[in-house]
Amino acid sequence: MSQSQTQSKTINRRFLLASRPHGAPTPDNFKLDQSPVPVPAAGELLLRTVYLSLDPYMRGRMSDAPSYAAPVAVGEVMVGGTVSRVEVSEHADYKAGDLVLSYSGWQDYALSDGKGLTKLDAKLGKPSYALGLLGMPGFTAYMGLLDIGQPKAGETVAVAAATGAVGSVVGQIAKLKGCRVVGIAGGADKCKYAVEELGFDACIDHRAADFPQQLAAACNKGIDVYFENVGGAVFDAVLPLLNTRARVPLCGLIANYNATGKPQGPDHLPGLMRNMLTRRIKMQGFIIFDDYGHRYMEFFKEMSGWILAGKMKYREDIVDGLENAPQAFIGLLEGKNFGKLVIRAGDE
Amino acid sequence: MSQSQTQSKTINRRFLLASRPHGAPTPDNFKLDQSPVPVPAAGELLLRTVYLSLDPYMRGRMSDAPSYAAPVAVGEVMVGGTVSRVEVSEHADYKAGDLVLSYSGWQDYALSDGKGLTKLDAKLGKPSYALGLLGMPGFTAYMGLLDIGQPKAGETVAVAAATGAVGSVVGQIAKLKGCRVVGIAGGADKCKYAVEELGFDACIDHRAADFPQQLAAACNKGIDVYFENVGGAVFDAVLPLLNTRARVPLCGLIANYNATGKPQGPDHLPGLMRNMLTRRIKMQGFIIFDDYGHRYMEFFKEMSGWILAGKMKYREDIVDGLENAPQAFIGLLEGKNFGKLVIRAGDE
Repeated sequence: MSQSQTQSKTINRRFLLASRPHGAPTPDNFKLDQSPVPVPAAGELLLRTVYLSLDPYMRGRMSDAPSYAAPVAVGEVMVGGTVSRVEVSEHADYKAGDLVLSYSGWQDYALSDGKGLTKLDAKLGKPSYALGLLGMPGFTAYMGLLDIGQPKAGETVAVAAATGAVGSVVGQIAKLKGCRVVGIAGGADKCKYAVEELGFDACIDHRAADFPQQLAAACNKGIDVYFENVGGAVFDAVLPLLNTRARVPLCGLIANYNATGKPQGPDHLPGLMRNMLTRRIKMQGFIIFDDYGHRYMEFFKEMSGWILAGKMKYREDIVDGLENAPQAFIGLLEGKNFGKLVIRAGDE
Repeated sequence: MSQSQTQSKTINRRFLLASRPHGAPTPDNFKLDQSPVPVPAAGELLLRTVYLSLDPYMRGRMSDAPSYAAPVAVGEVMVGGTVSRVEVSEHADYKAGDLVLSYSGWQDYALSDGKGLTKLDAKLGKPSYALGLLGMPGFTAYMGLLDIGQPKAGETVAVAAATGAVGSVVGQIAKLKGCRVVGIAGGADKCKYAVEELGFDACIDHRAADFPQQLAAACNKGIDVYFENVGGAVFDAVLPLLNTRARVPLCGLIANYNATGKPQGPDHLPGLMRNMLTRRIKMQGFIIFDDYGHRYMEFFKEMSGWILAGKMKYREDIVDGLENAPQAFIGLLEGKNFGKLVIRAGDE
C-alpha cells in the first residue's frame, strides 16, 4: 500500500511545536494536529507536500535562544522546505499537478499565494534534489567552499559529516577543483561510501579512539580548507592541523545543537584566536540564503551542469510517512541518517 | 648632554636574550653585552642605530612556543626594526650619513650587506615614523582595516589599544572612510586624547568597572568592524556587540602574551563559533609583511599622501637610551606607553 493511499484528502496532518526541547528533542516536543484541508481563495494555491526536507538548522528554530532567524512559536507548525504538488490552483501561473519548491513545513497541505515558489524542472534528476543537491544544502556547500574556502588545486580540504547533505557535495566539488579531500564521518560504512562512491581520498571515523592521530596521518600536508558544519570534538582534532592561511567556512555546529549548559568542544577560545593569528586562519560564518541568495542562479547553473554530466553522486535517506518526521529528525541530530534526510509525505 | 656624547665609537652595546620569560618578562631575561664595533668588509655597511622600535610581537620571539616566526635563541641579540645611520659604507649604493630602515635589533651597531634596507625620505616627517606610521604598525592598521575589515561609511568601527601605534592609525583611517569610531584604551588620559586629538567619536576606558556597559552604550548600533589587537577581557565585551556580518581583523592578542598556563579571556570557544555562525562574523588573522608585503607600496603612497596633507596625527612615546629598552618593553606589555614606543639610541 503506497503512502498516498493512506492519505486523507480532507484532513491536514500538521506537526506543531508542542514544547521547546531541553537538550535533545524528544517525541513529545512535537504534537500531531489534524485540521481540515484549507481551501484556496482567488489567487491562491493548495499545495500537497510530496517531500519534506529535514535539516539540522531546524533544531535552532525549536529553541528561543537568540539566533539568526526567529524561532517557531510553540503551537505553530514546524518550518521546513518541501517539494509540493499543486493540488488546486486559483492562481494564473500554476496549474494542478505542477511540482514546486515550497516552504510548507511539516504538514500534508498548505496554502500559498505563489510568492517564493519555484517550479521544478523534471530534467534535473529527482524532484527531491530540489531539497538537497540543488537546494539549500548543495548551495551551502558550493558557496561556502568556493567563495569562503577558495580551494586551490593540490590543497587539502577536510569536511566533516562527509556523507551528509552538505559534506558530500563539499567533497565532490573540492575533487572537481583538484584538491585532496579528507572526509570525517561516523562509522565504517559512511567512511567506505565516502571513499569508494564519492571519490574522497580518505575518510576518517570520528568514533575511533585514535581519531585525532588518524586524521593527522590522512592530512600529512595539513589542512588548507576545513568546511565546518559540526564543531565539538571534531573541530578540536582539526585545529592543530590547519595550515598557515587556512580557511574555515562555518555553516553549522551540529555537535552543539543539543547541548545544555556548556557546549561540547575545545575549551580554549584564546587558544583558537592565537592559532588564527599565528597561522593567519580565516574563519567566516554564513547563512546561505541570507548571504548568498543573490547568487543562487550562478550555483544552479553550474550544479545543473555537473548533474547532467554525471559528475555528482547524491545519496538520499528517504523516510516514508509524515508521521515519522519527529523520530527521523531526532535521529538526524544523532547522525543516524546516511545521506540527505527527506520525508516522503506523498506520491510524486 | 645628548645621548650620542655618551656613546662609544668602539664598543657595541647589545641586548641579548639571557633567558626565556615565564609570564611577564623581567630585566634579567635580558643581558647587556659589550663587544667591539664590527668592521664592514667590501660590500658591507656599518649601521649606527638611531631609533629602535619596541613592539608587542617581540614577546613572542622571546618564547619558544610555536609561532609564526622562529624565536630568538638564548644568547642572541634581541630582534627589532631600527632607523639606522650609515656610519661607514663599503657599499656602492650607500654613503655615510644616509638614514635607512633596518632590522638591526637591540644594539648600537650592526653590519649589513644592504639587503632589506630602505633609504628614508626626509620629506615624510620624522625618521622615526618609518617604525610606526609608515612602517609595520601603520601598514598593519591599513591592510587589516581596509582589506580584511572592509569598513563602509556609516558603519561602527571599534579598536582597542586606541592610542597605540596600530590602533591610533586604524581609527584615523576609519574616520577618513566615514565611519563612526569607538576606541578602547586604558585610562582617562588616553581616552581624552583619542577623542580630542585623534578625532574618535568615543573612547572607553577598559579599566572602568562598567566597561562592558559603557562600550555597549557607545556602540548603540553595534560594531561592524572590530580591529582585534588585544584579546582577553576586551574581546569578551566586544563579542556580544558584533553585528551581523561583522569583520574582525586579528593582528595581535597582547592581553595574552604574558599569560602562563590558561590565557585570559572568554572561556567559551563554542560560544564564539556560535556567534560567528549566527551573525556571520568573519575573523581573520594576519601577519602584515608575510601576508601583505607585496602591497607595501600601495600603503606607502596613500599614507604618505595623508601625512603630507596633515590628515594623520601620530604620537610617539620616545625613551632615550638603548640601556632603557628592557624596562620600556616590559612597560609596553603592561600598557604603560602612550603612543608608539621607540627607543632613541643615537642622534639623528
